[in-house]
Amino acid sequence: MPPSVAVFGAAGFTGALAARLLHAHPVLELRWVTARSDVGRRLDDLYPQHRVPLELEELDLERHGEVDAAIVAYPHGASATLVAELRRRGVRVVDLSADFRLRDPALYAEWYREHPAPELLAEAAYGLPELYRDQIRDCGLVANPGCYPTASVLALAPLAREQLIEDVVIDAKSGVSGAGRAATEKTHFVTVDENVSAYGVPRHRHTPEIEQELAALGCEVRITFTPHLLPLDQGELVSCYVSSNGALRDVDLQGMYESFYSGEPFVEVVGSPPGVREVRETNFCRISVHRDPRTGRALIFSAIDNLWKGAASQAVQNLNLMFGLPEGLGIS
Amino acid sequence: MPPSVAVFGAAGFTGALAARLLHAHPVLELRWVTARSDVGRRLDDLYPQHRVPLELEELDLERHGEVDAAIVAYPHGASATLVAELRRRGVRVVDLSADFRLRDPALYAEWYREHPAPELLAEAAYGLPELYRDQIRDCGLVANPGCYPTASVLALAPLAREQLIEDVVIDAKSGVSGAGRAATEKTHFVTVDENVSAYGVPRHRHTPEIEQELAALGCEVRITFTPHLLPLDQGELVSCYVSSNGALRDVDLQGMYESFYSGEPFVEVVGSPPGVREVRETNFCRISVHRDPRTGRALIFSAIDNLWKGAASQAVQNLNLMFGLPEGLGIS
Amino acid sequence: MPPSVAVFGAAGFTGALAARLLHAHPVLELRWVTARSDVGRRLDDLYPQHRVPLELEELDLERHGEVDAAIVAYPHGASATLVAELRRRGVRVVDLSADFRLRDPALYAEWYREHPAPELLAEAAYGLPELYRDQIRDCGLVANPGCYPTASVLALAPLAREQLIEDVVIDAKSGVSGAGRAATEKTHFVTVDENVSAYGVPRHRHTPEIEQELAALGCEVRITFTPHLLPLDQGELVSCYVSSNGALRDVDLQGMYESFYSGEPFVEVVGSPPGVREVRETNFCRISVHRDPRTGRALIFSAIDNLWKGAASQAVQNLNLMFGLPEGLGIS
Amino acid sequence: MPPSVAVFGAAGFTGALAARLLHAHPVLELRWVTARSDVGRRLDDLYPQHRVPLELEELDLERHGEVDAAIVAYPHGASATLVAELRRRGVRVVDLSADFRLRDPALYAEWYREHPAPELLAEAAYGLPELYRDQIRDCGLVANPGCYPTASVLALAPLAREQLIEDVVIDAKSGVSGAGRAATEKTHFVTVDENVSAYGVPRHRHTPEIEQELAALGCEVRITFTPHLLPLDQGELVSCYVSSNGALRDVDLQGMYESFYSGEPFVEVVGSPPGVREVRETNFCRISVHRDPRTGRALIFSAIDNLWKGAASQAVQNLNLMFGLPEGLGIS
Repeated sequence: MPPSVAVFGAAGFTGALAARLLHAHPVLELRWVTARSDVGRRLDDLYPQHRVPLELEELDLERHGEVDAAIVAYPHGASATLVAELRRRGVRVVDLSADFRLRDPALYAEWYREHPAPELLAEAAYGLPELYRDQIRDCGLVANPGCYPTASVLALAPLAREQLIEDVVIDAKSGVSGAGRAATEKTHFVTVDENVSAYGVPRHRHTPEIEQELAALGCEVRITFTPHLLPLDQGELVSCYVSSNGALRDVDLQGMYESFYSGEPFVEVVGSPPGVREVRETNFCRISVHRDPRTGRALIFSAIDNLWKGAASQAVQNLNLMFGLPEGLGIS
Repeated sequence: MPPSVAVFGAAGFTGALAARLLHAHPVLELRWVTARSDVGRRLDDLYPQHRVPLELEELDLERHGEVDAAIVAYPHGASATLVAELRRRGVRVVDLSADFRLRDPALYAEWYREHPAPELLAEAAYGLPELYRDQIRDCGLVANPGCYPTASVLALAPLAREQLIEDVVIDAKSGVSGAGRAATEKTHFVTVDENVSAYGVPRHRHTPEIEQELAALGCEVRITFTPHLLPLDQGELVSCYVSSNGALRDVDLQGMYESFYSGEPFVEVVGSPPGVREVRETNFCRISVHRDPRTGRALIFSAIDNLWKGAASQAVQNLNLMFGLPEGLGIS
Repeated sequence: MPPSVAVFGAAGFTGALAARLLHAHPVLELRWVTARSDVGRRLDDLYPQHRVPLELEELDLERHGEVDAAIVAYPHGASATLVAELRRRGVRVVDLSADFRLRDPALYAEWYREHPAPELLAEAAYGLPELYRDQIRDCGLVANPGCYPTASVLALAPLAREQLIEDVVIDAKSGVSGAGRAATEKTHFVTVDENVSAYGVPRHRHTPEIEQELAALGCEVRITFTPHLLPLDQGELVSCYVSSNGALRDVDLQGMYESFYSGEPFVEVVGSPPGVREVRETNFCRISVHRDPRTGRALIFSAIDNLWKGAASQAVQNLNLMFGLPEGLGIS
Repeated sequence: MPPSVAVFGAAGFTGALAARLLHAHPVLELRWVTARSDVGRRLDDLYPQHRVPLELEELDLERHGEVDAAIVAYPHGASATLVAELRRRGVRVVDLSADFRLRDPALYAEWYREHPAPELLAEAAYGLPELYRDQIRDCGLVANPGCYPTASVLALAPLAREQLIEDVVIDAKSGVSGAGRAATEKTHFVTVDENVSAYGVPRHRHTPEIEQELAALGCEVRITFTPHLLPLDQGELVSCYVSSNGALRDVDLQGMYESFYSGEPFVEVVGSPPGVREVRETNFCRISVHRDPRTGRALIFSAIDNLWKGAASQAVQNLNLMFGLPEGLGIS
């Protein structure tokens, strides 16, 4: 029997894409899709392009909890309660919210609110396979990284592991799908079209997540992180400006990056600044690294599809690892 | 003393643009801007690009009715009541809604609902200056045409006046600003971007308005009218396919159109199909006419900015006429 | 041994996409990619998103002609000569140009120029599987339909077969990728962005191809066909306005279309006007049909991805048929 | 007699826009438009939206040099020679190229090539009115700033004058019109649409120009400057990340910026990050400044229209100053 999977919160962009990927997955079997809005509508009516012929149901744990695994795409805060319930039933969970990304509940409280299920933090793995592949395998609860942290941590990990980040500015650019499905003035076509602006200034919630992961690699550093909204649908670029007191001048940056990601199936180290089109609708992260000889800085550009590697396809990558399947199954 | 003007319903796209044009108008003086939402916000906060330093107020006819003229940008149905009140106070009105466009209240009832103020229909002029300039002058109530009727009637008028329209298909394309400021799934960037689809099939409310005006020119014809939503902000193109039982074969179409619009300050008859960029943020309607020798059809393409000539700048054009001012004041 | 395939003319948009689909095809094996420009560059350098690790070579029939099949993506006129050479060597060919689409060489001469290889016309099948599946199977030369004819003929076939098309206006809208890779004023971002206009007025070369196929289905009719350029990348919508002297009034259009396409793997008959996003990067054609009760017309909207079903994925669909493989292999 | 003006190089985006602004200018009189390509075409054929009814002529200094002033929109290097000739004839010049922006010919040689007319550098004023208004008045040669330097220097000037910039990262984002009218793979719609990427890494030519102006204000600093290309037409945003060894912690940034730009007609200091739509088709620069309490950095966001304040309308602003006219004439 193939492992059965449910997607909880499948009416949003990332949940719906996760459902699409699982529906077409050669091994995992998508059993249920639930939602808090749009109950009763078929997913292929709401998202025709995904062609998932399932009806969105209201959550009923008695029925929907009888699965081997779940992807939870609930908002921050709301997710932890459902995850705790699923874990009690022995369901393996990949959680797309921020609820289990920060290991320190005090940090979570500072940036979000009091943590709803701190007892689960210890068992959660951070779902960035390139850094935590072994922990993710056979793990019961995986916290899928945020889209910006995915692109940023992959961009900075080689330098962080060598303690080569004294200071870093991360200027991030994202398509509108990152703002979610809610129709607001901010996501109105006329607001976004022919426009670009910064948001979340000066405190965006992805900041502590990136700092946590840089620290885990050996770099305790306070970062400056600023996202911008662009007139495009899917795609995310982070531009990282790293200074390191001159220590970068003699480093073979290109070699360091190629070696660090050698063998990684979903990270591409390239020679010139990547565009987000190159990774659209893929699980790839595409990275270039450059030295600015005038300032001694390292410049790193990292492109992902925010809905794929930044959310849904990385969730499937994690599920594959959790079930001992080939890592790229259903997302290549 | 310069004539004073109020814009009622200035929180929407067309009302706000009307306010901008009036605020910069060399003669007319913008006195008030009211709104039903966003009361208390400044217009230059809501629409920074318009730079109108006025606060949106809740409607108070005792204060706001003390003006010489008003532009009313209310939804269909809601508009007629306010217009009637303003007319009682002697205020000259350009109404942007559909409430006074259809001369026959039974037709209005068929496509909208029972008319709220049928007694005013007789005094309303149809605000297409190219066809009704004399009626608009000194008129107390002008019904500003819909955006699609503006582009369509200007496209077809020369043929209609010669009774050369046996049948016509109008395939219209509009930018998203035409759908208004309401944030809905339909106007969400991710819905519209990289997309195009027809809507209002098969009965769009601009149909009877176009038919009425063709009939007034001498052509009683049932039209096929289908609008499409495009991934752009402002701009509207109508493509008209006219057949006339062979009668068009020997007509000098280009000459007919150039002669019909000779001297018109805001209609440009050009030699090749116009793009909407050519009229963006202008009061121009740009038209090309072609013969299809294989079918005998006439093809007419007509481009406007839906918020300008299709709404706000045409309203100011009408106000200029009503006050005996040069027609292009403040909109050239 | 899996059948080997070459793509001739792989530097353009459609050829490169064909190469990508074949490179990932589970049975067919992509052996060569040739080009007339960019020789020596790797395809994954030119089109990073396709990830095809092959070098573009200059055509050398001695080497490149040793394949079982070829997709030829050459310009009209240039294609026929290469196709003739390949056929002499026994290579099965899907030709993406217009050279073998029109069965009548006189018609070809009228719209293009004198036909370079009229002797091959008899053996060419028209590569629209929904209408010519049996002829395509085991055929040596398939003329892949134009993108507009694909969407238009699929939109009209059910009515054409019942002789229910007295007259038809086709208003087509296409993304910019349809204009090809050549960088011109027409494809410059600043020309296209926030714009829309008609082109190819009044004689676009896809006209006779559509008429030929309608005639083959039983409807001899002169059509009016006008394409428009939209500010989007991939995607094509055709809006068809059919009149039939009242004969359509009692037809169950929805039932007719659903029945006509019942069992077709790549045609979706839906209930409301489709958007091109619903078929982006797929081999699907998505169609809705409506009756306009006021005029008696039938309105049909048909959406495809111009590079996929309109070109490259349909070419692979044809190759699959030619080799007796499941029709959707590598394109689902 | 009104001062007469010629635009040399009016076939490109900035030259054509300058011609439009001058054609509609209430005092200055546009006499000639010349070009190196498209000679003989009318400007309103090439740029219909600008509606300038003049023919592009081949340069003939005998005729075209008989003007009071000129805007030169030639490429870098080609400009200096023409400017020198015009100055010899006593024509006042605003030069849109980089040729007279760098005061040090050695710096010019390092980033461009040997300077073609170093003897003119001494008389050139740097055409940023907010910093050099007095020098521009009655000046014979004004070097119009680059678009990125315009936005960047205005963003940083208040801090630079107080020596509060120890280090700065400038991450810039520009619409495609900044890349000019040449149709290349880089400006092809399909390349840019749904994409974003960095370019000019790590040495973009606007770098020394920004450093020169910061130094002139009192801050000798090596900057990191990286531009990105966005899928929009006109608009440019620079995001500046300034660190200053803790010196910024107690500064009233908002007050400092409002005071610095108090009375400036074309700089708007606002409270939240500006979007480029807010300045589209205007001469405004819109700036917000923020403190990041976690890192002590100042974040400054500065938005302009790259073709307007970044080029053509700033050139007219400079012309107004040179002729003693109100600064905003023809550009408000």
